Parts: sequence; C-alpha cells; structure tokens
Amino acid sequence: MAFSPGSVRDVNITSSFWSSMQSRSRLITIPAIIKAQKSLGHWYCLTWKEGHEVKPHAFWDSDIYKVTEAACYFLMKHDDAALREEIEKAVDMIRAAQHEDGYLNSYYTVRGIQNRWTNVRDMHELYCLGHLVEACVAYETLTGSGRLLEPVMKALRHVDSVFGPEQGKLHGYPGHQEIELGLLRFFDMTRDPLPLKLAKYFILERGKRDKNGEIFYDHEAKARGGDPYDHMGSEMLTHYTKPRDYGYHQAHAPLVEQDEIHGHSVRAMYYVTAATEYVRLTGDTDVKDALQRLWRNTIDKKMYVTGGLGAMRQLEGFGPEYFLSDTEESHGCYAETCATFALIIWCSKLLRQELRGEYADVMELALYNGFLGAIGMDGKSFYYQNPLATYTGRPKERNTWFEVACCPPNVAKLLGSLGSFIYSYLGNVVAVHLFIDSDFTVPDSNGTTIQQKTNQPWEGSVELRVQGPQAIRFAIRIPSWVGTEYTCSVPDGELKDGYLYLPPVANTTVSLTFSIKPRKVYAHPKTGKDEACIMLGPLVYCAEDVDNPDVDIHDLALVDEPVVANAPKTIASVEDIVTVETRGKYLVNPNWSSLYGSEPWKYSDTTRKVVFVPFFLRMNRGGNGGMKVWIKRIA
Amino acid sequence: MAFSPGSVRDVNITSSFWSSMQSRSRLITIPAIIKAQKSLGHWYCLTWKEGHEVKPHAFWDSDIYKVTEAACYFLMKHDDAALREEIEKAVDMIRAAQHEDGYLNSYYTVRGIQNRWTNVRDMHELYCLGHLVEACVAYETLTGSGRLLEPVMKALRHVDSVFGPEQGKLHGYPGHQEIELGLLRFFDMTRDPLPLKLAKYFILERGKRDKNGEIFYDHEAKARGGDPYDHMGSEMLTHYTKPRDYGYHQAHAPLVEQDEIHGHSVRAMYYVTAATEYVRLTGDTDVKDALQRLWRNTIDKKMYVTGGLGAMRQLEGFGPEYFLSDTEESHGCYAETCATFALIIWCSKLLRQELRGEYADVMELALYNGFLGAIGMDGKSFYYQNPLATYTGRPKERNTWFEVACCPPNVAKLLGSLGSFIYSYLGNVVAVHLFIDSDFTVPDSNGTTIQQKTNQPWEGSVELRVQGPQAIRFAIRIPSWVGTEYTCSVPDGELKDGYLYLPPVANTTVSLTFSIKPRKVYAHPKTGKDEACIMLGPLVYCAEDVDNPDVDIHDLALVDEPVVANAPKTIASVEDIVTVETRGKYLVNPNWSSLYGSEPWKYSDTTRKVVFVPFFLRMNRGGNGGMKVWIKRIA
Repeated sequence: MAFSPGSVRDVNITSSFWSSMQSRSRLITIPAIIKAQKSLGHWYCLTWKEGHEVKPHAFWDSDIYKVTEAACYFLMKHDDAALREEIEKAVDMIRAAQHEDGYLNSYYTVRGIQNRWTNVRDMHELYCLGHLVEACVAYETLTGSGRLLEPVMKALRHVDSVFGPEQGKLHGYPGHQEIELGLLRFFDMTRDPLPLKLAKYFILERGKRDKNGEIFYDHEAKARGGDPYDHMGSEMLTHYTKPRDYGYHQAHAPLVEQDEIHGHSVRAMYYVTAATEYVRLTGDTDVKDALQRLWRNTIDKKMYVTGGLGAMRQLEGFGPEYFLSDTEESHGCYAETCATFALIIWCSKLLRQELRGEYADVMELALYNGFLGAIGMDGKSFYYQNPLATYTGRPKERNTWFEVACCPPNVAKLLGSLGSFIYSYLGNVVAVHLFIDSDFTVPDSNGTTIQQKTNQPWEGSVELRVQGPQAIRFAIRIPSWVGTEYTCSVPDGELKDGYLYLPPVANTTVSLTFSIKPRKVYAHPKTGKDEACIMLGPLVYCAEDVDNPDVDIHDLALVDEPVVANAPKTIASVEDIVTVETRGKYLVNPNWSSLYGSEPWKYSDTTRKVVFVPFFLRMNRGGNGGMKVWIKRIA
Repeated sequence: MAFSPGSVRDVNITSSFWSSMQSRSRLITIPAIIKAQKSLGHWYCLTWKEGHEVKPHAFWDSDIYKVTEAACYFLMKHDDAALREEIEKAVDMIRAAQHEDGYLNSYYTVRGIQNRWTNVRDMHELYCLGHLVEACVAYETLTGSGRLLEPVMKALRHVDSVFGPEQGKLHGYPGHQEIELGLLRFFDMTRDPLPLKLAKYFILERGKRDKNGEIFYDHEAKARGGDPYDHMGSEMLTHYTKPRDYGYHQAHAPLVEQDEIHGHSVRAMYYVTAATEYVRLTGDTDVKDALQRLWRNTIDKKMYVTGGLGAMRQLEGFGPEYFLSDTEESHGCYAETCATFALIIWCSKLLRQELRGEYADVMELALYNGFLGAIGMDGKSFYYQNPLATYTGRPKERNTWFEVACCPPNVAKLLGSLGSFIYSYLGNVVAVHLFIDSDFTVPDSNGTTIQQKTNQPWEGSVELRVQGPQAIRFAIRIPSWVGTEYTCSVPDGELKDGYLYLPPVANTTVSLTFSIKPRKVYAHPKTGKDEACIMLGPLVYCAEDVDNPDVDIHDLALVDEPVVANAPKTIASVEDIVTVETRGKYLVNPNWSSLYGSEPWKYSDTTRKVVFVPFFLRMNRGGNGGMKVWIKRIA
C-alpha cells in the first residue's frame, strides 16, 4: 500500500510566495525558453533530414520534450490557447519525426541512422526518449488525445526489439538514466506491461559484469571498433577521471551491490528515483535495501546544506565522502540544478512508500535552496551550477540559455507540478509534507477539501481547514528544524518518524503552531569547515556584498552572538524577504604582498553587523558578485 | 653575459645528507627502474616492429632516454662497468630503431608509421625525441663517442623537414613541451644553428591563431578527420575542462601575451624553462618580460608552500590564483613530482641570467620539499602526486613504477646532476646558491677549488675554503628565511637582491653564520587557509599520525605557543632528522551522527604536544597514513 500524491489538478497553490513563482514560470519562463530554442534553431531539429547542415546536439530533442511536459502542467491549471497550439505543433513535429520502425532521434537522423544504438553510453538516445515518455504522461493527462501515446508506444516497442536479455539484442542500458523513470510513470498511466519490463531490465542490468570484468559499455565500444581502455584515443569523455570510469554512470556495480553514491549526480538521482518507484511497483527488497544505503550515504556524507549535489566539477558529480568545497574556483561545488530537482522528486517518491520526516525535510531544503535560486527573479535566467560561495569582482550571472539546456525546463517542470509535492493520501489519511498555502480536493472523498493557510517560509503558523463529508486523518509533518516546540489544536496526536498523526477530523480547522527563528548550523568536522551557516526555517541564508558593502565577505568571521531576523512582514511577494543579522569580526590584514608570510591572519577587536538574505535570492539585487553561505566562525 | 653552472664533473658532493641520497639513487633507483621497465617489457619497445602484439604507450620511449640521461650523470662521478654496458646497449637499441629518414618513435613504428605526425597535440613524438636529445647531451658529455650525436642530428634534420614556417611543413609545436629545452642544451653543446632554429620556432609559434581564431591543434584535428569542437566525439582528453581547452598546453595565446600560468604544470614548467634559456641565448626582451610575469604569477599565486605546482587534478595542472587545496580527495593538489623537478631547473636557469635570491629560495624550497619526498627512503618507490595532507586509514603509499613513469627517472636525473645546482660562475665571481657540503673546482682558474662545509639543512653555519692561485669574488646567497641576522667573516660585503657580494679572497676560509630555528609560516588570506605551517630553514614540516598517535591530526589546531626543535645531532645520514614540536588543541566532538548539526566544533581547553617531521620524510616510518602540513590555528 503506497500513498498517492495529490495531483496537479487536485491542488491549487494560493501561496503568494509560490504562486508568484509559478506565474512567472508560466508567463515568462516557458515562452522564453521556447523562444530561445526557436531562435537558435534547436526547436526544429526534429524536422531535419539526414545530412542537414546543422548537426544537432545529442540531446536537443530532450529540451523540446521537457518544455512540452512543463507546459502541460501549467495548462492543467491555466488554459492558454496560444501555448496549447504551440504544444500541439510540437506533437505534430514529434509524430512526423518518427521513423517507420519506431526510432526517434534527431542526432542520428541527421548524422546517419546506420550508427544508431552503437554508443548508448554517450549518445543519449534513451535519455531523450525517456523525456518524451514523461512528456507523453503529462500531455495525455492533460488532453487524453492519444496523439503522443501512439508514437511513444511505437518507440517503446522499437526499444524492446533492440534491448533485452534475448540473444541478438543489446544487453545494455542508458548512458544517462532517465527513461527508467518515464517508463514507470507510463506504466502507472497505462498498466501496459511493456514499460515495466523495460524499466526493470534497465535498472537491474546496469553494472553487471561478464567473466572478464567487462560491462556493456566495454562490449559496445569494442563492437564499434574502439578500445575502452585507451586513455589517449577516441573513446573518453572529459568527465572521466580514469579510463572505464563507469562509476560516472553508476555502472561500476549492480545497484543491489552499491553502498556509496557515485558519479554524475543527475544520472545518479534519476537512477535512484526510478529504482524507488520500481520498489513501489514490485516490492523488490534487495533494491529497497540498496536504496536505503544510498540515501544514507547521500544525505549523511555528500549533500550540501542547500540540498545541492555534486562536489566535483569534472564529473558533474559526487566526490568523496565529506568533501564539499563551496566554490567553482576550487573545481568543486557543481551542485547542478537538475540534480537537486531530481533529489526533490526522489524524496517525493520515497514518501509514497513511507512517511518519514527526513524525506520531507530534505525535499523542502532542496526545494527552497538548491533548487529555487536556480531561476532568476526575472523568470528567464538560470543557473546550471549552484556554488555556495562566489567572489566579489567575479559575479556569477544567470544565463538565458545553455548549449546543454537541461536545467531551465526542469525548473519549469517542477514549478508547474509543485502542487503534487504538497500532499499525499492513502484512504482517508492525508499527509501534509510542505507548508504551502493551497487547496487540496481529496480524491475519492465525495469532494472533501483541505485548505492550508500559512505564511511560510517566514512564519510558523499553519491552519488546515477541512470541509466536506469525509473525515480526514491527518499526518502532518513536523519539520526537524521545529524540534519539539510546537502546539496543535487537536489533542492526542501521535508523533512518529517526523509526522504528527491526528485522530479523524471533519469540518474543522486544525492549527499547528511553531516559531521560525534564525539559527546557526554547523558542518561535520570531517568536512574541514569550521564555519557557520545561517538558516531560518527551511531557508539557507547567505551574505552578499550588496548588503555588506564595507568589507569583503570572504574576510568575515562570525562570533558567537545571537542571530536576529527583522520583523516578519505581511508577505505580498517573494521580494518581501526576511533578512537576518548577526555580528562578525573581519580580517584587518587581508592584503599580503606574497603568498606565504610570517605574520598570521589578524581579526578586528570589534565586531560589525553582517546581513544575510535567503540563498535563493542571491545575485538578483545588484552588487559585485560576492556571496557566501558558510562563514568562518571565531569561537 | 650569463653565469655558467658548476658542472656535474666539477662539483663533488660530500654532504652526508645529500650523498646518501645520491648513492641510493645510483645503487638502487637506477637499477630498480631499469629492472621495472625490463620486466614490464617497456624497455624493449624500441626494438618492436610494425604490428607487434604489445602496443607501446605513447611515451615509453622517453623513460628509456631519461634513465640513460640519469645514468650518464652518475657515471661521470662513479664509473660502473655494468651500468656503462647497459647504457651502450640502450644506445645500440636507439640507433637501430631509427628509420631511414631519421624518424624515431616506437608507438608509430608499431601502430602504423603512416599516421606519424598527425596528432602532435596528444601523441608525444616530439616530447620523446626531446628526452633523447637531453640524453644525448649527457651521454656525449660522458663519452664523447658521437654514438648518440649522429642519430640525434639525423632526427633533428627530419624534424626540420616536417616542422617550420615554410609552405608544406606543419606549422606546429609539441603537445607536451620538452624538446625545446633539449634543443637549447644541444645547441649549447654543438653550436649547430639547427637546434636553436627549431627551438625558437616551437617556442614562438605556440598559441598563434589564424584569422578564424584557430591554432595548429585545430588544423591538425581537421586534417585527420576530427572535429576539435566536438565534446561528445573522438578528440578530447580527460584533462580538458572544455573543448579546445588549449590552455592545458599553454597554447591559448602566444607566450609573449601570457600573464598567468595555465594548464598542465609540467608542460608549463618545461616551456618557461626552455624560454628562459632562449632568452639567455638570444636576448629576446619580449619573451623575457613574459617570463617575469609568469614567474611572479607562479610564485605569488599558484605555488604550494612545498614548491609543489598544480592544484587541479583533472588538468594535472594549475588552478585559479590562490586556490591551493591540500588533498587529493578534494580533487586538488596534484603537485606532480616532475613539475617541481622542472621548477628547480627553471630557477637554476633564471639564476644564470640574474643572481636574485628569490630564484634560489624557490629552488631550495622545491628541492627539499616538493621534490625530495617524491622518492621513498628505500630508493625504489616514488610519488607521482605530492599532496600536503592525507588521511589516517587511507595511507598513500609510494609506487615502484607507473604506467606513465615520468617521475622516477626525473628524480634520478636531478639527484645525478645535483652538483650543477650548487654553484655558478662568471669570470672570477663564484655564486653559491645552495648550502650543501661539496668541493667545486672553479673552471678556468688554474685549479682553484672551493670547499664548502656545512651541516645544513639542520644547522646554519657555512664555511667556504678557497685554495689555489685565483682570487675568488663570492656572491653568497642569504636565504630569505635567514632575514638580516647573519655574520660573515669577510667584512665589507654588499647585500644585493639576496646575495652577499664579497671582495676578492684567496687561500682563506670564509665563514657565514646564521641560526636555523623552527618557525611558523602562514598563507595569504585569499587561500582561505587560516592555518600554520612549521618550517625549519628550507624544510617544510608535517605532522604524521605515527608521531601523534593519540589524536587524529586533522582534528588538531595549533595555538600560538613557541615552536621548539630537538637539539641538532651530528648528522650521519638523512634518517637523523631534526623533529620539531609545538602545542595544539584538539576537537573534543569530532564524531557527529549527521552531516549538519546545531552544535559547533569544540576544542579542548588544554593543549597537547604536536610532533612534526620534515615533509620529505613522510610515509617512511609506518603509521596509518595520516599526514598534514597545514594545521588549523586558534589565535
């Protein structure tokens, strides 16, 4: 028995904080990223024929699919004839691009269909298709027209003819996981056994070795005339740290043997997310145990305090345990937007199987911090990497588009589907995971609704108004940052694993009250960071030079004085932020003539005010680029 | 007018510290690395014919040449019939491997001569040849037989037929600099204009762009059917951070336009060293100015306190200014042995043009620290990377050989030729750069000798005994770590740029006295390291777990208490080290259950003794792998 998420259709977000984010995404982001793809020509790559003068990038297709998916979520809440027409035209294009046998990929269509499926490791054919499958689920949920269902089913039958355990098929799996998740969503929608069979094969086959210790990627490299061991030669990616570095693809070992999260962080997160859904659908306990080990490893040893993932720039992925450098200059802190996006989804999938506060804590942390700031307040500029510190004089601007543009449409996808992360239900149990002003029409409850009123993330009070014929048994998350100091208007609640289970209530308002106060958070000594991070509720704060103009924020050291927030405002929009202040000392001898010297660093005797703003707001209000989450502390 | 180095033949090292190192290199290292190459078969790659079953690595040839070169230095001081025979057999092999037209390279000989010179960027043909040219200089200095001179001249004429500005030739330069330095050494020996012409072309042509902004590496990539821009395709090395990342090869701009040291650190150091010699031979002031900018940038912003170079593992090279992470786990601190080896040589070449104490300071620092510990006390194990911190439980062992084995023979080369780094002379001026017990027969002085007596690196007194008909004008380096507290037995010396210039002396003993006391050194605040490093004279010290067993050295924080050394011993060998002690606090709550917490790090109220040993001695005396140069400090 698994919880079902409240769907995009069943949840209306009313939060001024989040609905402004959603409107911006719908009205600015979606048009902007379609326009960017059109003006670059990428949007039309699916219409190109063999030998077309522009060579498509291996995954431009996926951007079209992802925008389509995101647009469908928004269209579920706000009809928009122009956007609908755009999406239908994209669907026409997709249908027309499919080959007779079901194959669908612009790169090989243009550059030579005879080479398809020869480099599954690098060439993203299955990755692109996976995004089409996800787009199909969103599109068919919106329209029910069957116009994507048909080509997707055809494409999946083609994939089934190419991949599988049978002799003559490729015993392979995607170089970049993604289709696994799409297939399981598609199975949920259609109950057709084919996508479940394919997902199972891709998830379980990955990382299996033959008697020579070689994996599918070695076999396919040899089949196409390459040498998978050759460092100097033709087969290596810049992301590999050594030849055959298949940990990059999480293919160093079968999933059920893995204990540590490795490699490219987006690949890794898509993998564990799909595998989590696979466990929900099949009950596979070996996979479930492996996922629990990988969860612990990710959260306990490899996650930035923002929910960012991926400390190694070269890999765009995970480094060793506890190594979490904060800057791009250190060749660290990749913290890709898409990885945090995927972490949020992983958490939501884990919550379908088990209500555990830790999953929701991480989901919320990642949402408000690692994810949210990836989009600029203008709605049309994006971060790909999300470092926790940048330097004055070297501003890290958001980009309007990327050659490899995975992040912007993922931002839109998540904001479009945000409603589905707030609640889940199982019978008459309704779990509340996120405190976001919203209405939820509980399915199969004869129209019973839940209205959530809160001023989060700035204030701690939450009201849940239940109306309708069905009594609701709430399981309300108590965030770990609340601790034990909360009160609930309904007595006799039972706190278990971070959720407060209440007795059934009907036609009443449940109040949960706790305070949100700024606090200092510290990092495990093995990180080497004897520094402090300021948080307020789920929000990570950072110091920016725009608010602290008289001192280089990298020269600051916090002292152990109280942290205070300015008085919470009535929140009209996201710009009405709560700032936080504390006090710090500062280096008085920051400028040295040589790299090494005989005099140590010296800090001021007096302290000065240090102003912090939410991390998601960074680089939106001018300044000269200096930003820092972790600030050295002086005990 | 340039200073000439005292040659290997003219200098006898008598220092117990250094002669034990040299003996070990001669009696253990050289036989061990020849044996390793033979047992792996690499040694014989030059005898292989096209289609040989083993494919040679692109630069196995160079290992043979480098061992030959190193052996020749040792043979200049200690004849050894067996070693001489080994070297003559290598020369036979080299001569026999040369093609009719002068081409000489095992990789393309085995894998298809028709593909030679098609990938100069990656395939090390000129690099290997450069090492042969250097070996030739050493071999002909030793034997004068002409048996390497002949094939090398033939090879250089072949190179001249392939590379140059003329139409029909490749307008190219090596992917890995090295031959430039060999060519200039060869020119010094032969005064043949061809090697100077080739070196000039390679040095000045590098990084020039055509009207499309493309360089030679782009042109040759296209010529062999590749696309230099293609990230996913066939042309990239794992060391590139982006397509066409030619900063890796210092080919992002012509040398005369460069301000910042970039890319692969060994390539960079070989380049600037050769260019420094080019300036000596030609007086090119544009190149000289560029080298001064690159020197300042290297020393002031990118050098580890050990003289290690290369903070980025992916590049095996330089990171951004001031980013000097200490561990391999952070994907940093490559600090390749060969880069420090080359830095020492660069300093020695700079000292030929100008006596500046800074050059000798860095040369000495790099020699005693970044370089010296690269070889184990067993004489037959080696470090390729030299991180400044390692972790208890993860010992970083030295290796007996490497697939890419550039470092071990470079260690032998430098130890074999160490005598030539101590003195230089110009007329009757004798500059003393390093304080190493030794005798120097001054050339063109009718047999005048200088005998240096000192107990360095442990004690500060130096005696220079002059005997013979020629009066000597000393220029004695005063190390920067001495400061102004020294006394000299000869009055009226003039201190200029770190050298003490004395009036002429004959048949006397000059005494220079200063003390060597342990001290704390600190790093520029822009490094982010509010830590202390212990030094004693030129030696960097480190804390190892073997001497500090009761606390994790990564949990230590030094307090501002005096640093004391044990009493200097009568030094019989390198194992008679001077240890240093100071006091530190330690973390009392190092073990956290989660990655982030609400309680800060806490240090002990009391202090404990912390024992330090020279960095070069690390991982030689057991222990469990923990080692740290920079220790956090509590002000």
